[in-house]
Amino acid sequence: MKLGSLQDLLVSELRDLYSAETQIVKALPKMVKAAISPDLKAGFEEHLQQTRGHVERLERIFKDLKVSARGKTCKGMEGILEEGAEMIAEKAEAPIEDAGLIAAAQKVEHYEMAGYGTVRTWARQLGHDQIANLLQQTLEEEERTDQKLTRLAENSISLQAAHH
Amino acid sequence: MKLGSLQDLLVSELRDLYSAETQIVKALPKMVKAAISPDLKAGFEEHLQQTRGHVERLERIFKDLKVSARGKTCKGMEGILEEGAEMIAEKAEAPIEDAGLIAAAQKVEHYEMAGYGTVRTWARQLGHDQIANLLQQTLEEEERTDQKLTRLAENSISLQAAHH
Repeated sequence: MKLGSLQDLLVSELRDLYSAETQIVKALPKMVKAAISPDLKAGFEEHLQQTRGHVERLERIFKDLKVSARGKTCKGMEGILEEGAEMIAEKAEAPIEDAGLIAAAQKVEHYEMAGYGTVRTWARQLGHDQIANLLQQTLEEEERTDQKLTRLAENSISLQAAHH
Repeated sequence: MKLGSLQDLLVSELRDLYSAETQIVKALPKMVKAAISPDLKAGFEEHLQQTRGHVERLERIFKDLKVSARGKTCKGMEGILEEGAEMIAEKAEAPIEDAGLIAAAQKVEHYEMAGYGTVRTWARQLGHDQIANLLQQTLEEEERTDQKLTRLAENSISLQAAHH
């Protein structure tokens, strides 16, 4: 494949994000199950709903651009989720299980923040204003989720550190 | 492996970052070579020097903690760098080559920002104040690199959009 224009690059990167989001939809139920604190379980549940919304938003964008959504496997997300799966398989002791899951989830969020920041900027530069706005909405939701995870991490860790 | 304490989790995550940084040291020279604009080439060169410094900082931390640096392969970074290598192999047209490289580099930065944010918080909670400060320094350098890449992206894209 030869990428000839910024439009090609945008479609390629949107497909990468579409692959990433659909992988996350499959992975999150395992994280819900593995999480120990009810707050973290609820947080992952909420994130799953949100991720389904991000998938739909991307599907609207592909329709607008008149291109298919599929055709790329996001290897970055594959690697990140594999690490998350190892974290679950390692069966950490209860007090630190959540800390590990949060660390894995924040890598997921950061991958998405980088990707959505990129496609939002490209869409804007190409004059796809409505698409850029949709991508900006998703970006802001990812950022808020990341901040929420930071707060949950600080709480779960203070608890753990108190017992150390 | 069973992770029994937050200290175990910290060491495991530091090893993940050590693996990530050493992978980046190997990948960056290819990105320097592929970059077209002299500014981006210089930016990647500078980032390579900085990354070598991050590797040394981590080695100091492992020495302090009296544990080995090796033992983990960062699969997240493997996936992210594989995508970057594909971007280079795709041989995009000159005007958008840099945009694609910057997108790949920002995913690298975001992975590291997530990882360093996590270990900095854990180190602080465990009372490893000096280690937490070193990790905070690296985190801030990664954040600054990400911001610099955003500026380079906006410049290279405006150029491209003007020709679209």
